[in-house]
Amino acid sequence: MLAEPHFTRHAGAWNMLTAAVCMALLGCLQAQELQGHVSVILLGATGDLARKYLWQGLFQLYLEEAGKGHSFRFHGTALTSTKQGQEVIAKVLESLSCPRDTAPGRCTELKAQFQQLSEYRRLKTPEDYLALSKDIEARVQHEGLQEAGRIFYFSVPPFAYAEIARSINSSCRPGPGAWLRVVLEKPFGHDHRSAQQLATELGSFFQEEEMYRVDHYLGKQVVAQILPFRDQNRKALDGLWNRHHVERVEIIMKETVDAEGRTSFYEEYGVIGDVLQNHLTEILMLVAMELPVNVSSSEAVLGHKLQAFWALRGLQRGSAVVGQYQAYRGQVRRELQKPDSFHSLTPTFAGVLVHIDNLRWEGVPFILMSGKALDERVGYVRILFKDQAYCAQSEKRWVPAQSHCLPQQIIFYIGHGELGGPAVLVSRTLFRPSLPSASWKEVEGQPGLRLFGRPLSDYYAYSPVREQDAYSILISHIFHRRKDSFITMENLLASWVFWTPLLDSLAHEVPRLYPGGAENGHLLDFEFSGSHLSFAQPPLEQLVLGPDSAPMPSDFQVLRARYRDSPLISAWPEELIARLAGDIEAAAVQAVRRFGKFHLALSGGSSPVALFQQLAMGHYSFPWAHTHLWLVDERCVPLWDPESNFQGLQAHLLQHVRVPYYNVHPMPVHRRQRLCAEEDQGAQAYAEEISTLVTNSSFDLVLLGMGTDGHTASLFPQSPVGLNGKQLVVLTTSPSSPHRRMSLSLPVINRAHKVAVLVMGRMKREIAMLVSRVGHEPRKWPISGVLPDSGQLVWYMDYDVFLG
Amino acid sequence: MLAEPHFTRHAGAWNMLTAAVCMALLGCLQAQELQGHVSVILLGATGDLARKYLWQGLFQLYLEEAGKGHSFRFHGTALTSTKQGQEVIAKVLESLSCPRDTAPGRCTELKAQFQQLSEYRRLKTPEDYLALSKDIEARVQHEGLQEAGRIFYFSVPPFAYAEIARSINSSCRPGPGAWLRVVLEKPFGHDHRSAQQLATELGSFFQEEEMYRVDHYLGKQVVAQILPFRDQNRKALDGLWNRHHVERVEIIMKETVDAEGRTSFYEEYGVIGDVLQNHLTEILMLVAMELPVNVSSSEAVLGHKLQAFWALRGLQRGSAVVGQYQAYRGQVRRELQKPDSFHSLTPTFAGVLVHIDNLRWEGVPFILMSGKALDERVGYVRILFKDQAYCAQSEKRWVPAQSHCLPQQIIFYIGHGELGGPAVLVSRTLFRPSLPSASWKEVEGQPGLRLFGRPLSDYYAYSPVREQDAYSILISHIFHRRKDSFITMENLLASWVFWTPLLDSLAHEVPRLYPGGAENGHLLDFEFSGSHLSFAQPPLEQLVLGPDSAPMPSDFQVLRARYRDSPLISAWPEELIARLAGDIEAAAVQAVRRFGKFHLALSGGSSPVALFQQLAMGHYSFPWAHTHLWLVDERCVPLWDPESNFQGLQAHLLQHVRVPYYNVHPMPVHRRQRLCAEEDQGAQAYAEEISTLVTNSSFDLVLLGMGTDGHTASLFPQSPVGLNGKQLVVLTTSPSSPHRRMSLSLPVINRAHKVAVLVMGRMKREIAMLVSRVGHEPRKWPISGVLPDSGQLVWYMDYDVFLG
Repeated sequence: MLAEPHFTRHAGAWNMLTAAVCMALLGCLQAQELQGHVSVILLGATGDLARKYLWQGLFQLYLEEAGKGHSFRFHGTALTSTKQGQEVIAKVLESLSCPRDTAPGRCTELKAQFQQLSEYRRLKTPEDYLALSKDIEARVQHEGLQEAGRIFYFSVPPFAYAEIARSINSSCRPGPGAWLRVVLEKPFGHDHRSAQQLATELGSFFQEEEMYRVDHYLGKQVVAQILPFRDQNRKALDGLWNRHHVERVEIIMKETVDAEGRTSFYEEYGVIGDVLQNHLTEILMLVAMELPVNVSSSEAVLGHKLQAFWALRGLQRGSAVVGQYQAYRGQVRRELQKPDSFHSLTPTFAGVLVHIDNLRWEGVPFILMSGKALDERVGYVRILFKDQAYCAQSEKRWVPAQSHCLPQQIIFYIGHGELGGPAVLVSRTLFRPSLPSASWKEVEGQPGLRLFGRPLSDYYAYSPVREQDAYSILISHIFHRRKDSFITMENLLASWVFWTPLLDSLAHEVPRLYPGGAENGHLLDFEFSGSHLSFAQPPLEQLVLGPDSAPMPSDFQVLRARYRDSPLISAWPEELIARLAGDIEAAAVQAVRRFGKFHLALSGGSSPVALFQQLAMGHYSFPWAHTHLWLVDERCVPLWDPESNFQGLQAHLLQHVRVPYYNVHPMPVHRRQRLCAEEDQGAQAYAEEISTLVTNSSFDLVLLGMGTDGHTASLFPQSPVGLNGKQLVVLTTSPSSPHRRMSLSLPVINRAHKVAVLVMGRMKREIAMLVSRVGHEPRKWPISGVLPDSGQLVWYMDYDVFLG
Repeated sequence: MLAEPHFTRHAGAWNMLTAAVCMALLGCLQAQELQGHVSVILLGATGDLARKYLWQGLFQLYLEEAGKGHSFRFHGTALTSTKQGQEVIAKVLESLSCPRDTAPGRCTELKAQFQQLSEYRRLKTPEDYLALSKDIEARVQHEGLQEAGRIFYFSVPPFAYAEIARSINSSCRPGPGAWLRVVLEKPFGHDHRSAQQLATELGSFFQEEEMYRVDHYLGKQVVAQILPFRDQNRKALDGLWNRHHVERVEIIMKETVDAEGRTSFYEEYGVIGDVLQNHLTEILMLVAMELPVNVSSSEAVLGHKLQAFWALRGLQRGSAVVGQYQAYRGQVRRELQKPDSFHSLTPTFAGVLVHIDNLRWEGVPFILMSGKALDERVGYVRILFKDQAYCAQSEKRWVPAQSHCLPQQIIFYIGHGELGGPAVLVSRTLFRPSLPSASWKEVEGQPGLRLFGRPLSDYYAYSPVREQDAYSILISHIFHRRKDSFITMENLLASWVFWTPLLDSLAHEVPRLYPGGAENGHLLDFEFSGSHLSFAQPPLEQLVLGPDSAPMPSDFQVLRARYRDSPLISAWPEELIARLAGDIEAAAVQAVRRFGKFHLALSGGSSPVALFQQLAMGHYSFPWAHTHLWLVDERCVPLWDPESNFQGLQAHLLQHVRVPYYNVHPMPVHRRQRLCAEEDQGAQAYAEEISTLVTNSSFDLVLLGMGTDGHTASLFPQSPVGLNGKQLVVLTTSPSSPHRRMSLSLPVINRAHKVAVLVMGRMKREIAMLVSRVGHEPRKWPISGVLPDSGQLVWYMDYDVFLG
């Protein structure tokens, strides 16, 4: 990445020197000359956002920076005619406000200066852009200035981005030595694919370092304070900011308004695209990321943030609950002219449970929630610490300021709510926080006010000395190239990678309807167990919309029948896995009781993953310490390869239970840096290991799967290898990549005390039907050769296999 | 174990038949004849316990059992003269009470019957015992009965146990076919050794199955209900009773009384021996143990309980806080005639943090607390569940019966306190518990009563229909051979194995003084972090007693100096370990950043254990996924041997962090079922592994220790093996057992980028002084040969090494 030149070529060296001196003197304030001319082009200057926040932010920028050596000019542009636009802009400029402590006369003067430097112009065709560029150059030359750079602020709908970007790139880039910055407002796509597409498109016109993607939450004073707070209170937080001390983190944005008037936008994005994917996710990262040594290094902050993204556990359907306020569908029908039969499934409320799989946060629930038409307007991040105290006195005698048994929390109160404005709150029994006293002051007491279960007096509470609008802050950060206040492309895509699977899985989900406001009662409360989230209250029938109910899993019972003359257990997937896990545990307990150990051989693939998770999460008395884990088959890849069966076993089971190292027996597919080389005798070594440790080479339980071609383990049709003979372990060839495999042989499988075959999913329907009819033909269908010599065979098939 | 014959030889078969028929008919109540004669000998029959509880319990037994076919006789005995004893007993018998629903006339009748069957006799010499035995035999014969058995209830001080036991065994055992049961009251020793001694002594007179060790808490109605409650509510509790849902467990017994009048007992046992080792530990086991399929099987219950003992994490000094009420030392001086200079260190208050290292409970804090002179009298077990809900409405709008965000808890309220009696409480949002309706009824509302932060109306609350005294219940259980209500020897010793290390470590600890009663304020509140417990408030100087303060760790700073021309870092042990762990993490982060991996070679022994724990608990951003772990040396024992260095690494580090399986490199000391056989080429194999994976065979960091003989790794004085040459890994011989070792060689150690030598403890003082002076003499002192070729050597020594 090339460093952006901050200064014109001629003045550069000296300016760098004075800047260095200035920095050395700290707080050096005298005006520096010759910093060059900056043009700010506000696209969509007559729009809502511009009128409400952006012009004010530009005025603020002017007030702060004009005295420091840059000259400025502000070009408001839009598609409106020049006359109309000028009128609008004139009104906006008239209504700008000065900082509170400015004398009225001085304010009039400053506003006049700013108005002088601001103009409206229509910007529509490439020629208009070229003309603008020429005008800037002419003015710079005329006034004997050097051009420092141009800021293009896109306050326009995203569909207009590409065209404008093309025009800027082709006709309105500043000359060499001056920088270009383009500022983009969300939405940046509505899923990973569209975000990627937009990124690629814009990437053809601008360098990544030229783009500033705004998430205005990052400009909110309290949000912007999260990292500095963590930095300035490092000492107190160092031991606390981790899974051993944090009970949970809540990241919440509640709104009372609904989506009326915005349903065309809302139908496309919903609450997740509107709030969770961006605002709440950014806050999550600020809380969860590892704190860089130097928090003022944009590069370090962005890098650490990205790492935190990688540690997020993937979201699944069960990670979220969604709702929709009752009036929404009527609004959609009206505003989008939809027929009465149209049922929008767009969520206007979502609660999401996020887990972060690293050593710091493993197991800590991060709760993200946002919704419209709720009972109050409030935004906050709440870090609740574990109660790790015991108070020896009766609760009646507790003194709040001294009792370590009362809740301990840190709250970044973003705004609104009962407190009415931004604040940082820290429980008094936790520690006295350090905040920069120039910009933060203690909140004055408000008798009777309770926040998060405790009176305000229980907290050290600080609010900004001067409330600042997020856009003013961000505009200043754009100017100062503080990239960490913006969304990089990597960051954006990482966020979509995280959210898209959930959005996909929710696509056909019927949200719970809620009446809105205080009437919601406990209808939207939700609870979690493990990674699974659900509403705390059962649904009220009259509020549930959607298609006629399909048969529910609970309508069926676990079926017992026979398949190929052996017991068959059928159930819905979740119950089937639970049943199989229970049976494995029972076998384990029995084997350990009788022989002191349990030899379990496991297959890879996707079906066992759910089984591994079930065993890891729900089986507390599984005798892992006495269990030996073997592989049924393995792909000839290094053990750390994502395609390795062992890797799946490690990720989903071994990391969560305590199997001693020496009881784990991966297949030696990777010896002397080679994969499954005959001469390395991996198969023989594994066979020897089995013979040595497993009595009679009879595993206590072998778990198999069945492929759509009738293969099992890594024994494939049309090959005699491993079907007969004395070899316990064989090298085989798969029709699909990676082709080379190591596998237990059919004879050793059939020597097991128990064999369980797990078959799941509609893809298996045909083979399951076929295999139910064929005889013993392992050469054609290796699975048909599974028939334990004296052990027991049980088939576990989910209903999808039958219902197809 | 031989089954105890329940019936006399002749009547046996028939009785077994009728018993079976009775069982088949369920609730069969008609009297059975011919069950034989039972003699109950209450030793210490005139003592406090006997007068207060035991006679009443025996009367209860008589009322319940007399109609069912046994005949009884009750012999109260003591050392007192016959006349005096008879007078006392007559008074006690007169004051007995009948069950509430007995008509007065009937009660008088029943008491008269019981008095008829009860006698006082002096029991002092072996001849007295023989006489008693003869009398029983004579009576049985005279009345044409068969003797069923004899119960000897030891309500005497433990010093008298042995003598009485000898006499019973030699002179007072019943004849063949009749059983003997002896009932013992705690204390059963004051530490593991004394308990073991007592057990051995008693074991020479009685079979284990003849002994009933009483912990009267096991007879308390609520305590006795814990397992049945878990059993009867299996379905609701199955998913809840584990680390994923339980926030903490509190097991509490608070007393308002102090130890006045009992200081001679108290000085010997303290609060831990008096309450925690027995009552609270038993309750802990009932809560924590795996629930047997059949909770009415004594054998299963006792077996599962024992397993729970084995899973207890060892207690350390930091596992407890102790206190002593201010008046105690004065009471001790007065009662034990001690001089004013005598300072008792006996704790009258203790808070202990217990962890259970199994899959069900890992990480869940179990808080045990008991004390005298506290602000209230109350006993309870409280299981607090994690708050796993988010309530979408403002707290102001929560409806208690519906809000899943209010505390969810199950409380076994043992007695006293605000509720005034025993009860079982379950939060209404949790589930409606099932309790046997014949013996438990719903508690009636007590307006205004709050328990554990919530009004009583928030709970399903049940209390016993009829309050029963613990001793009555236990006496009945003795008669019915319900062994699970008593302390087996294994159980007792397991408990002492658990408590003794803490008692030892507290032996010289000065307890915090507390004023007593409500004045204690927050002085005794404690908090925990990891396994470490401490008082929440700093000590009040005027309340701290004890010797003049020794230098405190915080009085020193981490010292930097030089040792053998290399940097030396010195500190108090805890800080030293923290520093070393920090340095290792820094090295790891740097190596991973530069090379993508970090090769760390670790030594075994005791000093590294603290380091492993520190790394496991306090270093969240350690790049474990990219770290390779190697062993510096290993003992020639199987990897699962407790003496194996690898085993220590696994227990203290690997179990707590996520190092991929294939990054862990134990030394191959155990190949082909043999230990360090030259021909198995383990050393060569390890060397090859190092050469293959570690660039230039240069480890990023090697951690060494130093033996008192100057050895390091497993390179011992007076042997040239491994000091020079090209071998990376060598087999060596240690002067201490196990003698055979595998070790990295000095050349490969010296090839490392960093070498850290950790030396801790006063035992190392002399060798550290010596080695500071010697030159390069690895043949004499192998440690003196550690001098990295181009890497860095740092010595980490704690102050104990210098202060000796």
